[in-house]
Amino acid sequence: MSLEEERISDLRATAHPLRLQMLSLLTGAELSAAEVARELDVTQANASYHLRLLHAAGLLEVAAEETVRGGKAKKYRHAWDAPVVRPPGTRDEDRLAYVRVFAEMIPRRYLELAPGAPSRFTDADLWVEPEVWEQVTTLVDEASALLHASARPPRTEGTVRAALSVAAFRLRDGSESS
Amino acid sequence: MSLEEERISDLRATAHPLRLQMLSLLTGAELSAAEVARELDVTQANASYHLRLLHAAGLLEVAAEETVRGGKAKKYRHAWDAPVVRPPGTRDEDRLAYVRVFAEMIPRRYLELAPGAPSRFTDADLWVEPEVWEQVTTLVDEASALLHASARPPRTEGTVRAALSVAAFRLRDGSESS
Repeated sequence: MSLEEERISDLRATAHPLRLQMLSLLTGAELSAAEVARELDVTQANASYHLRLLHAAGLLEVAAEETVRGGKAKKYRHAWDAPVVRPPGTRDEDRLAYVRVFAEMIPRRYLELAPGAPSRFTDADLWVEPEVWEQVTTLVDEASALLHASARPPRTEGTVRAALSVAAFRLRDGSESS
Repeated sequence: MSLEEERISDLRATAHPLRLQMLSLLTGAELSAAEVARELDVTQANASYHLRLLHAAGLLEVAAEETVRGGKAKKYRHAWDAPVVRPPGTRDEDRLAYVRVFAEMIPRRYLELAPGAPSRFTDADLWVEPEVWEQVTTLVDEASALLHASARPPRTEGTVRAALSVAAFRLRDGSESS
């Protein structure tokens, strides 16, 4: 079955370090497989495979098609604000696989911390009124949307490279069993 | 050397899953070692040890001292908004150990996701103007401060239990070597 026929879950698609990096890269720039390969230091065949998979999962759009030396080269873009249609039956194990890779990226990126730059970490497991939680998630959504909407191509003059990871969710509070 | 004599780095102190949970717990409530032990399902001796360590690192304050059955019991509180005095010579390995434990908490807490509640994840490694990054970090700081300032004791009527993890930092952009 080809990737295009099999509707892959967006969660399964993103549960992969290289693919997460691809989504970030294609948020700020429209790039072909060859360009993505160069930027992330992987082979073009490898880049193509993962890009097609992300496209099949609905996470990438084809922004343009270029003719390069007689052949066609697609330029991809991550439609970060497009609603994701999640196929029914997304399994818990897919979700957890995504969360594990998401978490793994944090210490991995931290190894590339800019010297002298401050870093911010919030770790909280707290009890708050639902209205407070609503405000908190609105603020982090706003931060995330601003960052994504402002993304520029790598090494654009006058920009800095920044990493943001946010996980926000409600936990079981014991009232579920009552 | 006792914990009080050795000035432990706050990073080393927090690079521990149980101690991170203790800081969250003591953000919303002032509790004794016995109460913390009960809440986190550990022995009182274990709770006492870790609480003293967090206190030595400057992360906990003694909020009150109670007389319980003739003995004194300290009630601890996490002074989440107090500036942390980081001893000079904090080692890179301590920082990385903290970041690893911070990341580890995310899939661990995700196992306790409230059924039916939405979860939010942002994973970004992007190039933006410094002013944008400044705005993004201001928003996440605001979210974090609001959540901490609003924390209530566990299972307070009318509250929900929520987890927030935020990592935000600048990455090397290649200009460092020039």
